[in-house]
Amino acid sequence: MPAAMVILAACENHQNQIVFPKGEKISNDNFIGTAYLQPLIAADSLNPTAVGNVSFEPGARTKWHSHPGGQILLAIDGVGYYQEKGQPKKILHKGDVIKCPPNVSHWHGASPDKGFVQVAITNNQNGMTIWLETVGDSEYAD
Amino acid sequence: MPAAMVILAACENHQNQIVFPKGEKISNDNFIGTAYLQPLIAADSLNPTAVGNVSFEPGARTKWHSHPGGQILLAIDGVGYYQEKGQPKKILHKGDVIKCPPNVSHWHGASPDKGFVQVAITNNQNGMTIWLETVGDSEYAD
Repeated sequence: MPAAMVILAACENHQNQIVFPKGEKISNDNFIGTAYLQPLIAADSLNPTAVGNVSFEPGARTKWHSHPGGQILLAIDGVGYYQEKGQPKKILHKGDVIKCPPNVSHWHGASPDKGFVQVAITNNQNGMTIWLETVGDSEYAD
Repeated sequence: MPAAMVILAACENHQNQIVFPKGEKISNDNFIGTAYLQPLIAADSLNPTAVGNVSFEPGARTKWHSHPGGQILLAIDGVGYYQEKGQPKKILHKGDVIKCPPNVSHWHGASPDKGFVQVAITNNQNGMTIWLETVGDSEYAD
């Protein structure tokens, strides 16, 4: 392989080094498609903030859901979607940040063509995530 | 410039693309050395979680301080230090995560030779950061 090709391959490897590990494939039915979760911090009685890294493969997304204490999303890599009930879908890129207020139904996931990596910061002060209906293919594409 | 050099330069540029903007230079005296803050999310009455991206130049660090609601640190890039009162200093690399309990005195910053980028997730439920004494050069090097 010519030197330029070797360096290009190394460069692509570097770009693939996302900040946190990919974690384990999510097996529950609150997600559509293939997604991975790496828990980073668990909530406890002193600090009710939970933090996790979620990697969505292209087309993967959560069901609609809400958080009694609200949620913050940090877009770490790729291209993602975020939508609150009754609002247009937002497209997220690396460095974008979302603050979802308590009890607002929303979903998030990857774009159809590029995966998406996010850090989710969830306030469990007033209770855990409330899971709702699926995000169907036409709703996702809308 | 040979093709390999051009690609290598492009690769280094890619590696320098940290997730969040560097923000503004911190001008208050709660930091020793040069550090930058990009606020990402402000706390509000519904969700008391504040999130900010802090970039420390080599040798830069906070003063000792504590948080009434605790703090979570995500190491995004570079090499950092974290120390709780009475505990040995921890060395942080990209992907490391720290949970600092409420009211525990601690400081964090960059290593002497490499800068450090962190996301700080602070729970302001029970009040704002309490700033304490400086971290002197010998204490920092200890």
